Amino acid sequence: MRVSVLFSGGKDSSLAALLLEPFFDVELVTCTFGLVPTGEIAAKTAGELNFPHRTLLLDRGILESAYELIMKDGFPKNAINHIHEKAVEALASDPEVPVIADGTRRDDRVPVLDLPRARSIEDRFGVQYTCPLRGYGRKAVDLLVKKHLIIEEGLSEYTVKADYETELRELIRQRAGEDKIRDLFPVHVQSHVLTRKKLH
Amino acid sequence: MRVSVLFSGGKDSSLAALLLEPFFDVELVTCTFGLVPTGEIAAKTAGELNFPHRTLLLDRGILESAYELIMKDGFPKNAINHIHEKAVEALASDPEVPVIADGTRRDDRVPVLDLPRARSIEDRFGVQYTCPLRGYGRKAVDLLVKKHLIIEEGLSEYTVKADYETELRELIRQRAGEDKIRDLFPVHVQSHVLTRKKLH
Repeated sequence: MRVSVLFSGGKDSSLAALLLEPFFDVELVTCTFGLVPTGEIAAKTAGELNFPHRTLLLDRGILESAYELIMKDGFPKNAINHIHEKAVEALASDPEVPVIADGTRRDDRVPVLDLPRARSIEDRFGVQYTCPLRGYGRKAVDLLVKKHLIIEEGLSEYTVKADYETELRELIRQRAGEDKIRDLFPVHVQSHVLTRKKLH
Repeated sequence: MRVSVLFSGGKDSSLAALLLEPFFDVELVTCTFGLVPTGEIAAKTAGELNFPHRTLLLDRGILESAYELIMKDGFPKNAINHIHEKAVEALASDPEVPVIADGTRRDDRVPVLDLPRARSIEDRFGVQYTCPLRGYGRKAVDLLVKKHLIIEEGLSEYTVKADYETELRELIRQRAGEDKIRDLFPVHVQSHVLTRKKLH
């Protein structure tokens, strides 16, 4: 059975794909609004991991709604969760997609699809939504990442990644300037996956 | 790295072990109070699944506390969760155990170790507590079980299983009689794993 993994090129979505690989036919899917070439960035990492990859273009109106949310809230949580929910819905509406996965971990707060929303998507679209890392805490994820992936880490301002934040930051940069990005996003460490570790 | 999977011989703990197998050295551990030979029942299934297995004898006082809880409450939830928490703690206190897993699923309510308790055990004992099925809903679990396991299902009164409920029911039978069991436990379908499906 095929599973479509929402893929940013970061360590969490990469590890989710690795955990699913022995049990499903994995394809990686990167959602983009076309504002930053995130699909190309993610495709390169997907190739290194040796998984098939495709890019799914999302309606620009979703990014506009997220922009309104973050400007109103003053913090990114609701805006990022909004994009994530719409990305899962867009993937779920594809009749060729029976199972969706993402890299959500036990201790994550953003992006997280809460249980009522997850069940609603499963019921409306007849898909299964899964989070292979949901039962793993930070240290257990770190153990698995260290064993299976080669990553580079850096501050979020400088790390090239294909996540929802990247395009939201770019829209804010265009409309409100660099300083506004620093007001709205906490500086945090991002990971970018380079390739797999060769085992054995 | 070794992972110790709390194992009842049911489909959830069996599937948890299968999902971990490509990434860890799996051992199955069945906790028992010695009231019913649950360790032997589980050892047989573990052998069919081709995993190493051991039995961990728990302090009978834990079962006594659970008995008091269920008689006071009139329902099994808190009693079963109490046994589960103490079982995870007992396993965590073994310095040879770095990672613990169980068969908790996304939609489970019993037995579930809530997040503050899980983190407390991780911090106190220096272990990682993981739930490989935590990110999977009922249908996704059913898909994986159907693909990988041969099971028999039956009503909880008649299905031989090595879970916490089995010994708690036996203690109630000895002290309060068969009718009391029917008062306290809802009749539900239990699964017992026979063996793996041969793939390829």
